[in-house]
Amino acid sequence: MINSVEKADVLIEALPYMQKFAGKTIVIKYGGNAMINDELKRNVIKDIILMQCVGMRPVVVHGGGPEITEMLRQMGKKSEFVSGLRVTDAETVSVAEMVLVGKTNTAIVNLLNQHGARAVGLNGKDADLIVAAKHLAKVFENGQTREVDIGYVGDVTKINSNILRVLLDNNYIPVIAPIGVGLKGETYNINADYVAGEIAAAMGAEKLLLITDVEGIYRDYQDKSTFISTLSVYEAEQMIREKQIDGGMIPKVEACLRALAGGAAKTHIIDGRVPHSLLIEVFTDKGIGTEVVRPMRRD
Amino acid sequence: MINSVEKADVLIEALPYMQKFAGKTIVIKYGGNAMINDELKRNVIKDIILMQCVGMRPVVVHGGGPEITEMLRQMGKKSEFVSGLRVTDAETVSVAEMVLVGKTNTAIVNLLNQHGARAVGLNGKDADLIVAAKHLAKVFENGQTREVDIGYVGDVTKINSNILRVLLDNNYIPVIAPIGVGLKGETYNINADYVAGEIAAAMGAEKLLLITDVEGIYRDYQDKSTFISTLSVYEAEQMIREKQIDGGMIPKVEACLRALAGGAAKTHIIDGRVPHSLLIEVFTDKGIGTEVVRPMRRD
Amino acid sequence: MINSVEKADVLIEALPYMQKFAGKTIVIKYGGNAMINDELKRNVIKDIILMQCVGMRPVVVHGGGPEITEMLRQMGKKSEFVSGLRVTDAETVSVAEMVLVGKTNTAIVNLLNQHGARAVGLNGKDADLIVAAKHLAKVFENGQTREVDIGYVGDVTKINSNILRVLLDNNYIPVIAPIGVGLKGETYNINADYVAGEIAAAMGAEKLLLITDVEGIYRDYQDKSTFISTLSVYEAEQMIREKQIDGGMIPKVEACLRALAGGAAKTHIIDGRVPHSLLIEVFTDKGIGTEVVRPMRRD
Amino acid sequence: MINSVEKADVLIEALPYMQKFAGKTIVIKYGGNAMINDELKRNVIKDIILMQCVGMRPVVVHGGGPEITEMLRQMGKKSEFVSGLRVTDAETVSVAEMVLVGKTNTAIVNLLNQHGARAVGLNGKDADLIVAAKHLAKVFENGQTREVDIGYVGDVTKINSNILRVLLDNNYIPVIAPIGVGLKGETYNINADYVAGEIAAAMGAEKLLLITDVEGIYRDYQDKSTFISTLSVYEAEQMIREKQIDGGMIPKVEACLRALAGGAAKTHIIDGRVPHSLLIEVFTDKGIGTEVVRPMRRD
Amino acid sequence: MINSVEKADVLIEALPYMQKFAGKTIVIKYGGNAMINDELKRNVIKDIILMQCVGMRPVVVHGGGPEITEMLRQMGKKSEFVSGLRVTDAETVSVAEMVLVGKTNTAIVNLLNQHGARAVGLNGKDADLIVAAKHLAKVFENGQTREVDIGYVGDVTKINSNILRVLLDNNYIPVIAPIGVGLKGETYNINADYVAGEIAAAMGAEKLLLITDVEGIYRDYQDKSTFISTLSVYEAEQMIREKQIDGGMIPKVEACLRALAGGAAKTHIIDGRVPHSLLIEVFTDKGIGTEVVRPMRRD
Amino acid sequence: MINSVEKADVLIEALPYMQKFAGKTIVIKYGGNAMINDELKRNVIKDIILMQCVGMRPVVVHGGGPEITEMLRQMGKKSEFVSGLRVTDAETVSVAEMVLVGKTNTAIVNLLNQHGARAVGLNGKDADLIVAAKHLAKVFENGQTREVDIGYVGDVTKINSNILRVLLDNNYIPVIAPIGVGLKGETYNINADYVAGEIAAAMGAEKLLLITDVEGIYRDYQDKSTFISTLSVYEAEQMIREKQIDGGMIPKVEACLRALAGGAAKTHIIDGRVPHSLLIEVFTDKGIGTEVVRPMRRD
Repeated sequence: MINSVEKADVLIEALPYMQKFAGKTIVIKYGGNAMINDELKRNVIKDIILMQCVGMRPVVVHGGGPEITEMLRQMGKKSEFVSGLRVTDAETVSVAEMVLVGKTNTAIVNLLNQHGARAVGLNGKDADLIVAAKHLAKVFENGQTREVDIGYVGDVTKINSNILRVLLDNNYIPVIAPIGVGLKGETYNINADYVAGEIAAAMGAEKLLLITDVEGIYRDYQDKSTFISTLSVYEAEQMIREKQIDGGMIPKVEACLRALAGGAAKTHIIDGRVPHSLLIEVFTDKGIGTEVVRPMRRD
Repeated sequence: MINSVEKADVLIEALPYMQKFAGKTIVIKYGGNAMINDELKRNVIKDIILMQCVGMRPVVVHGGGPEITEMLRQMGKKSEFVSGLRVTDAETVSVAEMVLVGKTNTAIVNLLNQHGARAVGLNGKDADLIVAAKHLAKVFENGQTREVDIGYVGDVTKINSNILRVLLDNNYIPVIAPIGVGLKGETYNINADYVAGEIAAAMGAEKLLLITDVEGIYRDYQDKSTFISTLSVYEAEQMIREKQIDGGMIPKVEACLRALAGGAAKTHIIDGRVPHSLLIEVFTDKGIGTEVVRPMRRD
Repeated sequence: MINSVEKADVLIEALPYMQKFAGKTIVIKYGGNAMINDELKRNVIKDIILMQCVGMRPVVVHGGGPEITEMLRQMGKKSEFVSGLRVTDAETVSVAEMVLVGKTNTAIVNLLNQHGARAVGLNGKDADLIVAAKHLAKVFENGQTREVDIGYVGDVTKINSNILRVLLDNNYIPVIAPIGVGLKGETYNINADYVAGEIAAAMGAEKLLLITDVEGIYRDYQDKSTFISTLSVYEAEQMIREKQIDGGMIPKVEACLRALAGGAAKTHIIDGRVPHSLLIEVFTDKGIGTEVVRPMRRD
Repeated sequence: MINSVEKADVLIEALPYMQKFAGKTIVIKYGGNAMINDELKRNVIKDIILMQCVGMRPVVVHGGGPEITEMLRQMGKKSEFVSGLRVTDAETVSVAEMVLVGKTNTAIVNLLNQHGARAVGLNGKDADLIVAAKHLAKVFENGQTREVDIGYVGDVTKINSNILRVLLDNNYIPVIAPIGVGLKGETYNINADYVAGEIAAAMGAEKLLLITDVEGIYRDYQDKSTFISTLSVYEAEQMIREKQIDGGMIPKVEACLRALAGGAAKTHIIDGRVPHSLLIEVFTDKGIGTEVVRPMRRD
Repeated sequence: MINSVEKADVLIEALPYMQKFAGKTIVIKYGGNAMINDELKRNVIKDIILMQCVGMRPVVVHGGGPEITEMLRQMGKKSEFVSGLRVTDAETVSVAEMVLVGKTNTAIVNLLNQHGARAVGLNGKDADLIVAAKHLAKVFENGQTREVDIGYVGDVTKINSNILRVLLDNNYIPVIAPIGVGLKGETYNINADYVAGEIAAAMGAEKLLLITDVEGIYRDYQDKSTFISTLSVYEAEQMIREKQIDGGMIPKVEACLRALAGGAAKTHIIDGRVPHSLLIEVFTDKGIGTEVVRPMRRD
Repeated sequence: MINSVEKADVLIEALPYMQKFAGKTIVIKYGGNAMINDELKRNVIKDIILMQCVGMRPVVVHGGGPEITEMLRQMGKKSEFVSGLRVTDAETVSVAEMVLVGKTNTAIVNLLNQHGARAVGLNGKDADLIVAAKHLAKVFENGQTREVDIGYVGDVTKINSNILRVLLDNNYIPVIAPIGVGLKGETYNINADYVAGEIAAAMGAEKLLLITDVEGIYRDYQDKSTFISTLSVYEAEQMIREKQIDGGMIPKVEACLRALAGGAAKTHIIDGRVPHSLLIEVFTDKGIGTEVVRPMRRD
């Protein structure tokens, strides 16, 4: 049992971090178990609100996960695959949008507000926040790489961040669903990691925090002793090239690289299964997970 | 064919209305055929953008319509009825929210932005915009009135309009889905007419414009000669009491009464089947449809 | 007879132009028949107010015309000429100032305000808006060019535009009489076309609109088929050099060139005898009259 | 010869007045000899600029004087009189406007700017500053009082002071010609004393300073020992009623009464023939001329 | 040893208090052991900075203590007493001012800034912050009460709080030495508790926190079981009247009463010997010490 | 005896200087006789307030003088000297701080406020205004120069001027005691001339005015005819190098050079024994004392 004086000590220990990050934008990619487990969910929500209370400007980007699959199943919609890639046809992207915007996003906004925040849900169509173009998947078959049209999967081509600044300046927390809009108004489903990376770049964020379901990055996943606390952008690029980083982690590391290239200060891949991993990363010296950083900058 | 000079004359004819309504808030309830027919839809979208261009502050509230029913059908969800009233259970309200927020709302926002506006979608959970409580339906059975719990159907209890002002002040057009949030975070489906009426009241709107699929109100629907151009609040209350206004029109007239009681200046029930009925109402002397007004105020 | 729906169509047709020019400064040189004919006068006045209503920032510069001559006549003042140029002595410039500022300017301001605008009259002495120096006329006689002092005729040397910004930011329409002030406080009469060009340059105007009494510029005035819709600055300079542009049109074309060199985006010489020629130019695709533009810029 | 130390002493003596009047509006009615004599003119101009330099907000209202008469003479216009009152027909008021706005006003503005101020000329038509209605003169003839229409002579019915505040907030000195505008746009000539009184009332001025060509008010003009330094509003009203105040002084005293009734703090009738009488009144204990004040307020 | 997760829990526990007090003014009377013991001193400093970091607006008022006595001793100045009261002659008040402003105040400001704050020292002379008048001590002798002049000891007569608002709005922490200034510029030493109470009243503070060297208030000091957690203003007034509150505590309780009467929301007498007692009071449910409150308000 | 008209003339003579210096920052080093003699003191105080009244932004830096010595004497503190330099040990610097901040500074602030200003006292610790580092004195002994640690005497290393701008923007007059703060929070006594020079540089002051007890600088002090009115920075540097400027004057001239190098426009060494020498310098053509200026700039 922690007594009052010890509690005060803990608050005081967090003081230098409050002083350091006051007024800075923090982009949080929210996903994985932390979006499913009720206890973890409440933790993340409170962590975000606390960040705002001590003067940071949090921006939340969330993914979708199993809810889209479940809805497709309920609607009797079967997924097609081309060379192992799910094809996102018009109906599928419409369901994805409906679930991400009308269910996942409203639930996060609601939870934040129930805990005293003033959150506002957004998707890429709001004020043209996320402009996107069709992503052409590369398939390697019969010794050749060719591009495959897998439908309404998009790449971010532009972030119109003004609406974010208006909301942050008025003390609202923006919560963003990863739906993009094409130049002709078409809807695109976009990987939320990439959206978070682009938002962090466009906002010149102080931090990009990607919540995952692993401890971070290992040189060799089999060997827990090879855990990497800090990864320079050069090492990260090399590990991707040499396929030392596996499938699910690639978009996360690429999002970090994109954010850093666009002007974000630091990026972190953190373990959402640890309670309050956001706060631990932001408010303690320990850090948690793997940070990807530009070399020469250790602040 | 209208020539250039005639076109200029038309613009000049609209000038007094531009001068009169500059800086005023106009709440538009968007629904009916004007949301389905592609031609009418584009008209309404352009009408709204034009209002903003000439200095008005439009706020759009939309309903849902057949899309919710269709989605429930696709999901194999059967509707229960109690004494003729559809019961909105937890799953149904979730589908309604998903469709209204993630499909209908995003489509309207998208269409506005494709035509050059900067629209932002909202629902009642965003910044707690629409706080609601359970609506208790009154059922008359066996000579007695009793209240029936028909689930997650809500009445507006509070509008937190600050987010609307922030968006309007920054030249965004707010587009609102009629989803309310309860004090414990529960989701409520609310009749969009009532939401529009409450928003108009909370904003002290200059006008509430309810787009319908009829010409307006008649004393006797059989007799087209009994069309009512202007209805005072007293007459309107009387007609409701005396059941001269039928089912579908009741929420519209009540929304007008609520808006007027809360401070809105004028309210109009207009025919969405007439192309550009919004502009005709706002920018010409003719008017269109039925206006419900406080007596003593003819401006 | 144009019906309501057609009227709405006309308004909607103007929408893209409203969107394009919102917030932009439009300098209008007001003169010629449009200042004399009552019908045309009312048209111009309403056109200007409509521009402001839809978010543009109009600035009006007017000329003088026959009222000065009439006043000189009434006062029994005879005009002297040197080599065909009217000499503007101290008394003449004083009469010009009196008529331009105290009669022409107040009448335009009054007319604008009677139609619902909030206009404010200015001349070059107000806040030292138009600083000027003596213009030395060049006379070609006996095979030689020499400079002739024709009195208080001025060239603009500096525009102090701050007062214009203050008025525009507060939604006033500035109306400017073409009187300049010398460094020692002396009064100069300046060609209103040049003043308009300099004001457009100093304000970085989106458009300079010069209202004239002709259709525009012809390569050959005799041959109506040689009408020029668009003239590049290079062509315009060449036509002046080669004397293809005649007397009265020279100051207009030079005003356009000056405005473009100083940063104005586009310039137009339009026919004030066509009703609402201002609106037709600004709000329709047709355009009207001759535009003088920088090459490479066709927006 | 005053040495440097004595000069500093004089500045220091003015300090309490600077502290007292900083940020306060001072309305100055400029007229009489001080507008004709070059030396006195320069003095008044510098006095006004100095007031602004030390933080006051001066507003200048000027009259017309002999220039209008001279212009009418030059134009061969004869004045008609009805029972001793000059009839101001349409032509006469047009000449008055032209001279007041285009000659007297521009000259004062110019002089202020030549001495380093940023002055802006206004008349009642600018932003509808001075709204007026026809003044009906009362004529006593054959034992009866009747109202006579003497043409375009006006009474102030409303001051739209917003343009004054905009200019003062941006450090411009407004200089106002006493031309009023009727509801239908007609031009009225108004006594400048009354205009100054109304402006002082509308602005809640700290002081109204009326520059005249006499020392102030005497109980008995023959007896210089009866000079009145301070007159209460009650005494002033009584003196007017009992005709102890003669013709030319009546509008001045009535302007004071009007200013005080409307909220101005103090009013002064001062002798413009004394060099720098404005400064002496404002910056020294001596005061000068006659002040008209509300009783109970001696600050 | 507290682990990271527990630390995060502690931060989250503080969240509701951060939300509740954001933007609120907190006046802290700093004194006693917490000003002498180095460890406690650092704690208080950090507690204050943390309050500011989470959005509160702390204002610090400090007392003097033993440093004044020591300085008087060093200077060989002997204190006179009249009926047991120390007489504060001109020299003594000058020493008090010098020590409070030039030593105690600068040391606190310095310590705050060394820990990352931006503090600014003030005393009652700065911008006439604390206007005071001579306090007349009441002495009871020979069965009679008489007033005794004990020199430059003052009562607060007015707080000019504008300088506090300017500093707080610009994120500076004001640190105030309890020196008052009389209407003729004379210096007064004032009890810091009273100054804090008056500042809290003038600022409409959310909390007044008085740091003392005791646990709080007891009904009976001998009996630790009679500790009072919450005291209503009526009880407090009664206890003073009935002399149940002893000497040193009287000014503290009176400061609370003064603050509450002037509009402060809550007041607390807390034990400065407990480390971080400020934070414990503000950020935990436990509370600490004795609160004096208006009845009816338990928030 | 100067009459009213002459007084007005003097005010008018000051007008061009008011116009020239409006909005400009003037740094005044206040010291010498002008701080001791009651008459001179009042003069300086009023001069400063008058500067503010006419729109300048005065910043006052004061020295200490005999009060520190007197206090050290009273406390029985003996001064040590190393090679003729007074050693400022921890106790001495503490006394200096106490006297400068708690006595000299409060007295000047009080005097300004008693005359109607709103002054605020500052020292280098407030908002870290003056960051300093230990000054190493250079001693020439036995044919060698060596550095000697003479304790807490500091050199300015940084000015954090934001607090000055906040106060000036809110119409407070900052009064600064020359105490600096080291990176570890240590206290430094700094020559007030240098502090004034650095403040003038950091603020880009229009003028640095150093009040001394001499007429200014002479080429040869014996020969009054060699008085220097204007000294270029090159001449000043040469005179210091060639030891033509003696001890007490060196810091003043160096402060001027520092201010000019940092962006101040002009610097003046003026005679504080002449009443109102500040005003005479600022408001008359005569000037007074010696100005040190950059060549090429004679404005």
